Amino acid sequence: MTVRTRKVSINEPDQPDNQTNQINPSTLFAIVLAGGSGTRFWPLSRETCPKQMLRIVGEDTLLRQTIKRIKGFVPSRNIWVVTTEDKVQDTRFHLVPLGPVAKEIQFISEPVGRNTAPAIGLAATCLHRRSPDSVMIVMPSDHAIPDEKEFLRDLNLAIEGALEGNLITFGIRPTRPETGYGYIRIDQPDKPDEPDKLYAVDRFLEKPDLETAKSFLSEGGYFWNSGIFVWKTSKILSEFQKHLPSLYSTLKEIACLLSSSEERISVSSHRHIDSLTQRCNGRYGRILPGEQDRRSQPDKPDQPDQPDTRINDLYSTIDPVSIDYGIMERSKDVRMIPATFQWSDLGSWAALDEIIERDQAGNILRGNTIDIGSRNSIIFSDKRLIATIGLEDMVVVDTPDATLVTPKGRTQEVRKIVDVLKQNNREEHLIHLTVARPWGSYTVLEKGEGYKIKRIVLNPGARLSLQRHSRRSEHWVVVSGVARVTREGEVDLVHINESTFIPINSKHRLENPGEKPLQIIEVQNGDYVEEDDIERFADDYGRP
Amino acid sequence: MTVRTRKVSINEPDQPDNQTNQINPSTLFAIVLAGGSGTRFWPLSRETCPKQMLRIVGEDTLLRQTIKRIKGFVPSRNIWVVTTEDKVQDTRFHLVPLGPVAKEIQFISEPVGRNTAPAIGLAATCLHRRSPDSVMIVMPSDHAIPDEKEFLRDLNLAIEGALEGNLITFGIRPTRPETGYGYIRIDQPDKPDEPDKLYAVDRFLEKPDLETAKSFLSEGGYFWNSGIFVWKTSKILSEFQKHLPSLYSTLKEIACLLSSSEERISVSSHRHIDSLTQRCNGRYGRILPGEQDRRSQPDKPDQPDQPDTRINDLYSTIDPVSIDYGIMERSKDVRMIPATFQWSDLGSWAALDEIIERDQAGNILRGNTIDIGSRNSIIFSDKRLIATIGLEDMVVVDTPDATLVTPKGRTQEVRKIVDVLKQNNREEHLIHLTVARPWGSYTVLEKGEGYKIKRIVLNPGARLSLQRHSRRSEHWVVVSGVARVTREGEVDLVHINESTFIPINSKHRLENPGEKPLQIIEVQNGDYVEEDDIERFADDYGRP
Repeated sequence: MTVRTRKVSINEPDQPDNQTNQINPSTLFAIVLAGGSGTRFWPLSRETCPKQMLRIVGEDTLLRQTIKRIKGFVPSRNIWVVTTEDKVQDTRFHLVPLGPVAKEIQFISEPVGRNTAPAIGLAATCLHRRSPDSVMIVMPSDHAIPDEKEFLRDLNLAIEGALEGNLITFGIRPTRPETGYGYIRIDQPDKPDEPDKLYAVDRFLEKPDLETAKSFLSEGGYFWNSGIFVWKTSKILSEFQKHLPSLYSTLKEIACLLSSSEERISVSSHRHIDSLTQRCNGRYGRILPGEQDRRSQPDKPDQPDQPDTRINDLYSTIDPVSIDYGIMERSKDVRMIPATFQWSDLGSWAALDEIIERDQAGNILRGNTIDIGSRNSIIFSDKRLIATIGLEDMVVVDTPDATLVTPKGRTQEVRKIVDVLKQNNREEHLIHLTVARPWGSYTVLEKGEGYKIKRIVLNPGARLSLQRHSRRSEHWVVVSGVARVTREGEVDLVHINESTFIPINSKHRLENPGEKPLQIIEVQNGDYVEEDDIERFADDYGRP
Repeated sequence: MTVRTRKVSINEPDQPDNQTNQINPSTLFAIVLAGGSGTRFWPLSRETCPKQMLRIVGEDTLLRQTIKRIKGFVPSRNIWVVTTEDKVQDTRFHLVPLGPVAKEIQFISEPVGRNTAPAIGLAATCLHRRSPDSVMIVMPSDHAIPDEKEFLRDLNLAIEGALEGNLITFGIRPTRPETGYGYIRIDQPDKPDEPDKLYAVDRFLEKPDLETAKSFLSEGGYFWNSGIFVWKTSKILSEFQKHLPSLYSTLKEIACLLSSSEERISVSSHRHIDSLTQRCNGRYGRILPGEQDRRSQPDKPDQPDQPDTRINDLYSTIDPVSIDYGIMERSKDVRMIPATFQWSDLGSWAALDEIIERDQAGNILRGNTIDIGSRNSIIFSDKRLIATIGLEDMVVVDTPDATLVTPKGRTQEVRKIVDVLKQNNREEHLIHLTVARPWGSYTVLEKGEGYKIKRIVLNPGARLSLQRHSRRSEHWVVVSGVARVTREGEVDLVHINESTFIPINSKHRLENPGEKPLQIIEVQNGDYVEEDDIERFADDYGRP
């Protein structure tokens, strides 16, 4: 076991900058894993709005909190978000509210999700070509860590350990016999409570049953596996080579297909995916720029498709494997730091109890609720009223198109509901009725035979793409703000209580020239009123 | 105790018409009590859509089922519906789908609800002046009785008993120690199971606790009190005189204020209430005609208000009292018939178990639900998805603007939720987002600052009133069917995918001249977008 007092630090404003082993900030990278679909938080999470994009704990979404937590610590352009191809655009849009940092963040997109080891391996492969001396901080995007300062303090210690060639992981001191987490057993369990130490790890353990979890607690020396890691890129790649040689050679082959020029290439707009309805071929395994002002960037001609297709094929052959199972359990150089920060992986609705303050009756009530005498229950409402009487240890989550009711003990089974929805080709697991867009949002108020009604909110100064629909016309009624409407080249202002009509097949654009949000009610008429009946001629957000 | 075999009958097609004691059909009346607010079925029941108007058991609403059950047995114009003033119009509209019979049904409206004794006393007072030899069948409008034939069979026996001067009530053989019902103990409990008998009653008992209810069951001779009664009008009035003398004299005074000419008067259209938003003065305590074609009826001038005001004042002074407590417990002439029909008073959501078939897991699932492993639960959904996992003995009821979640054992407390809504001046206990109208229905899709969006469905041939709004304009987009729109005297046809605009203060009318339903999306704009901003100039349904 290695015992070490803290020596290195970067960018920690509280500390004088006089430590040894100082790392060059340009070689420190944060790899944010944001590929999770988060079905366990259904109905609040959807395929197009996974858990990391939810505002369930704290003031902002989990992903944006993750970026905020790290952004002063790591140079903004060294923050890399790894997600799957179908989530890249939505994830980019999602980060826009972070301001300038959003434009610096880089994206790595996997063709498909293959669990954490391939995602981390792909990031390490890209990173190693860019910066062979780099240190990677690997962090999930959907965990709750309320204590930013404590987290950064522990991170400094981890970086020091990583620079010495260790694979560093954070262990969380267990407070209850939790069956939803994996555990880490340290090598010297008799002194597990000294902070600022690196502990050698005896073994990693899968999620235990309740009896086993209880014995872990009474025995001592067991920690929850947080899934947050720090290591040198070169070190993790050599561990891949040793313990996952097949995956390693696939990643090497992918690396050869990625020309270094491609890594900085701007993705031409028509190659971008429109999530949910379209899947893009190619454009993965490379670093994509963050949300930049695409109007100022000239489109570059596409590269031929062959390398993309080959990468796609290669990636699909990869067996899904977690980094814990594939590397951490097998490597001899793993060291654990007992975290001093509060943490929850928010693995299910029931996990909110760990991290959100409960009222006197043990309830967490949010939104439009009326409760009579419930205890230890979690009740999430949006706008509609949820009235509850005498619930005990229950979870009730309401959204405009779906409501979940389940005892806390069975929240893990929410996945099964999502499976049923998939099997039945329904939409309640895919998309919310209100969809955030970089220009604002839209809400589907009703959809019926031959029509769809939306409320569209357009931010000041924003505009939708110049577009055309081949199977529907649109009536727009302005209910607040002023709209600038382009229709077949003619431009009109439409004020509150005025309306306009967009016939089928006419090229049109909606803009908000004002200083307050524009709200319009759109009534679509046609034999087909789905989102993919759209032809874009110009778009501020790089959509095809 | 009187034991009697069956002798009399009217209108029973299965039986040859050769019984003795035949009643003259013109003197047989069905008094349907329809004043209940039914808060216990919230959120499906609302102040403007009480329990009797719900389709919770069987193919039609409880009130319409009640009318259908009795309409071949009693002449249609001898069916009198007693309800409160604020529910008369909605109740009339509600009966329209019954067809011609709806036009025959008479209404008695109470100024305010005062429990069952005053309502029955008022009906008896009116009825006695019309038909002194009449026999009254008194029946709640919100009970479930699946066995129509058995019910009518028992009713024949009851009429015979009534003609002999008894107050007849139906007792239901208890099948479980129910604490939600009142009980009747018969005088000769050793032979309680002979059908076609009239049993003298020992006593009426209030809702018992569980232990007492269990002892009733083991002891025998106890029946549930169904609240269905049969008696001669003259007999019940003499019992009122004896046991509720103060109420009796108030009713006598009211009777003097009701001129017999008024009893058949058509209520002039501008005196009609528009429920929820307006309360009409007067026009109660009299018989109102059913839903007739008001276009063919000339308006009659109003009577002076004095008698109405006096009746109003008198009625408000009446103490609420139930017929059970006020008369049945005190009269010596009560006889009970053990009912042979299945029955439930549907006193709460949990009562559905008694009357609706459950699936193998003991669940009652209705509407858009996905369930994993729940048992003995009642899950009612409308359009939105309700997903449930592992519920036990729970009730989940969803409506577009409110959802209830409660264990079955606490469904009686739904009233408390309604109380909270009232205290907070909310709307979820008053009205549904979809409101049935005699011309069709409207659904509020969204209401926001300065706007409201509705989907309006207009039946073929129907039209709204000629009307004007002083604080809002309206945009109409036709999404199916054809609209005939009158605006300031000009008439236009508006087809699917066309729209029109109704400016503030313009007199307008919407009609459906076609043969299929017309659907329009209405976007209201204005500083005030409530239902009561309406001035009607002509209306097919007699509204002011």
